[in-house]
Amino acid sequence: MIIVEGYVRFADAGDFSRIRDAAFAQMHASRAEPGCLDYTYAIDVADPCLMRVLERWESWQALEDHFARPHMIPWRAALASVAIEARSLRAHETAETRQV
Amino acid sequence: MIIVEGYVRFADAGDFSRIRDAAFAQMHASRAEPGCLDYTYAIDVADPCLMRVLERWESWQALEDHFARPHMIPWRAALASVAIEARSLRAHETAETRQV
Repeated sequence: MIIVEGYVRFADAGDFSRIRDAAFAQMHASRAEPGCLDYTYAIDVADPCLMRVLERWESWQALEDHFARPHMIPWRAALASVAIEARSLRAHETAETRQV
Repeated sequence: MIIVEGYVRFADAGDFSRIRDAAFAQMHASRAEPGCLDYTYAIDVADPCLMRVLERWESWQALEDHFARPHMIPWRAALASVAIEARSLRAHETAETRQV
């Protein structure tokens, strides 16, 4: 399994509300992709400018296919329409998993 | 590296605000632990009852030590004071990591 985790930091706490509809569409379309196990955006409880990203994919191939999907185009356009101060995303292949 | 990911689903969207101070204290204390790389709570943008959890730890040992820390006691008490409908948390050891 591949876990994508990280964040997008908006310049202004109101920026997310300007792209909320696009984010919902992106989540909905991504969750319907083959190999997508989870695809979530969430606002950090301590920082309203920080959008946390958590995705789970069945394979590297599923993640690579995701980046080429048509629904990425309006999502990237939405992100480009607001001021983003920082962005950090990493993808990890998992080995052992434990319930906690 | 160990990634902990998952969620806590509150019965009511207002429940998180009742434990906000305890959550802040838990995040602050956990981030100060040896081996903690990240410790975040965030509210899902599509569901205000859903608190997303994302943690990163240097090792299984660091995570196991975390569960035994004294600051877990008031945090568990705070969680027990609100109605939780579901809870799902998994810890994954990572192998290959890629920037995305």
